Amino acid sequence: MTFTLPRIDSLHDEALAQSLQRQLDHKTKPVGSLGAIEALALRLGLILGSDSPELRAPQMVVFAGDHGLTRRGVSAYPSDVTWQMVENFLAGGAAVTVLARQHGIGMTVVDCGVAHDFAPRPGLQIRKVGYGTADCSTEPAMSREQCEQALMHGIELVEGLPGNVLLLGEMGIGNTSPASLILARLGGLDIADCTGAGTGLDQPGIARKTDVLREVLLRHEGVTEPLDVLAAMGGFEIATMVGAVLQAAAERRVILVDGFITCAAVLVASRLVPAVLQRCVFAHRSGERGHSLMLAQLEARPLLDLGLRLGEGSGAALAWPLLPSACAILREMASFESAGVSTRDGAA
Amino acid sequence: MTFTLPRIDSLHDEALAQSLQRQLDHKTKPVGSLGAIEALALRLGLILGSDSPELRAPQMVVFAGDHGLTRRGVSAYPSDVTWQMVENFLAGGAAVTVLARQHGIGMTVVDCGVAHDFAPRPGLQIRKVGYGTADCSTEPAMSREQCEQALMHGIELVEGLPGNVLLLGEMGIGNTSPASLILARLGGLDIADCTGAGTGLDQPGIARKTDVLREVLLRHEGVTEPLDVLAAMGGFEIATMVGAVLQAAAERRVILVDGFITCAAVLVASRLVPAVLQRCVFAHRSGERGHSLMLAQLEARPLLDLGLRLGEGSGAALAWPLLPSACAILREMASFESAGVSTRDGAA
Repeated sequence: MTFTLPRIDSLHDEALAQSLQRQLDHKTKPVGSLGAIEALALRLGLILGSDSPELRAPQMVVFAGDHGLTRRGVSAYPSDVTWQMVENFLAGGAAVTVLARQHGIGMTVVDCGVAHDFAPRPGLQIRKVGYGTADCSTEPAMSREQCEQALMHGIELVEGLPGNVLLLGEMGIGNTSPASLILARLGGLDIADCTGAGTGLDQPGIARKTDVLREVLLRHEGVTEPLDVLAAMGGFEIATMVGAVLQAAAERRVILVDGFITCAAVLVASRLVPAVLQRCVFAHRSGERGHSLMLAQLEARPLLDLGLRLGEGSGAALAWPLLPSACAILREMASFESAGVSTRDGAA
Repeated sequence: MTFTLPRIDSLHDEALAQSLQRQLDHKTKPVGSLGAIEALALRLGLILGSDSPELRAPQMVVFAGDHGLTRRGVSAYPSDVTWQMVENFLAGGAAVTVLARQHGIGMTVVDCGVAHDFAPRPGLQIRKVGYGTADCSTEPAMSREQCEQALMHGIELVEGLPGNVLLLGEMGIGNTSPASLILARLGGLDIADCTGAGTGLDQPGIARKTDVLREVLLRHEGVTEPLDVLAAMGGFEIATMVGAVLQAAAERRVILVDGFITCAAVLVASRLVPAVLQRCVFAHRSGERGHSLMLAQLEARPLLDLGLRLGEGSGAALAWPLLPSACAILREMASFESAGVSTRDGAA
């Protein structure tokens, strides 16, 4: 199997951009007064190639996997929590499932490489590459073949999804570590600036985690190509997500990105094909140290800033209603002319 | 008529607060990882007096009025836009109506003192105190009697509303000026720091507006009691809103506050009865200069920061879905115990 990048065109359409901007400027409000919602409306119009964009059947996909590096004590929680939380997603009791239900967002959980065998059931896709990655402080997290298998899984998965919006979620005890490693290596940043508390390490715990991650980077010194970095220090859920992001971008789906981990997948995908970023909407700035640096790498201006640090896709689900709001502003608001409202200079 | 303040008790209930916090801490997520959503859930529980709070039939009320001060050129738009926008609200073409429709929020427009006669129709309440306020650069904006009449209108209006959530909206060409004046006088701040572009003045326009407002403050020097300030330099829509806020607080409704103007009404109400603030949720930090100072006066931490500067209640409508999200987290998320998920120390 050789992995081939999906074809992803740049979304330059000056005529459409002008048409969208003109529409927004003629709505019954001062020009620009809906701030970031106007920028969002413009982006959604460009992604969906329409001056009257409509979001259909949004799909939250939660990518789950385990991490060999957890044996080095980089997380406050035991690895068993990964499969237990997958069960919790499927039972409807986790934050992301509660929020997806509130908003009528479709929900799929993907076993990308959890160290556990799940009974098949609706809402669960088994796309397992292994029972957790290898410990990347001693060897590559996965082989190049495993990495490409995960990418293909992500592509196939998105090909089978309805609708035109993909919301990214993830679950994997220990997965702030690969996200920090990817950010540090692809961004050329110091690992200390990229490493945070994850699920809740204290200061000594963060210091130990930083030491381990520094050791990992040394072990994989000289690995700099995006897919090599992904294989050496990534996770099965992150690699599957990279494939999903590439495919969603190729299909011109709107990609609503959650927090630190999902951003790491988008960072890898965007280093492979920069035009991926044109399709992304960033849901929030999280409380995880390193996320602001990550967002800067992605040139992203997120919608929310609520101090979230849960992951799962919970931030994407919380931000979701702003997307249909932006579309409704474009589609349903009256213009000064149609409503007979006077403009600044006083003419109706 | 003598206006009597509604009775508003302080919401101290240590047992309920502890019960809510304990619930949040035992949900299947790291403690505190839902950030501001957890603080919101706690607040909604305390307002509604329930450890399983439920929001019912949210009501957006848009308070509209005109301002005599506009003859001094303090706004980029002509006063006629106030009544024209009221018509736009009723026809469903304004931002706030589009967003309220998206979220199933009930919508009432109140003519508190627009310089126009409206044909009666569903969704419109006529509670007119006058055809616009007087020019407060030469005389009080309204008499004490008019001010108390507006307060009573607000109280009666809320008494007639279904549900347990009030979303505040407003429309009134020129009404950033009374909001700035109220902030400057009640907050003891320099008017230059409280004065912004409103609907879109340029820098020379803002400078002229600041000069006019400084003149108004001088004209009403020594007026410092909240209701006296409201009568001297407020607006009919702001005064009606103050009554509505007081009554909503007395009824323990959740009050979702929009931007700069609605905050000015809450500032007056909270100077009359500080416990009003316990009932308030602040939707957003707006792009209007002075709003951050206003929020600081109210010790408010708003949910959104999207550079909005439209008013109408549009920010409150955009933030609204976060409130049912917070309640759903409390009501529907599993606990570690109920979901069989291991805790930090590894015990299920």
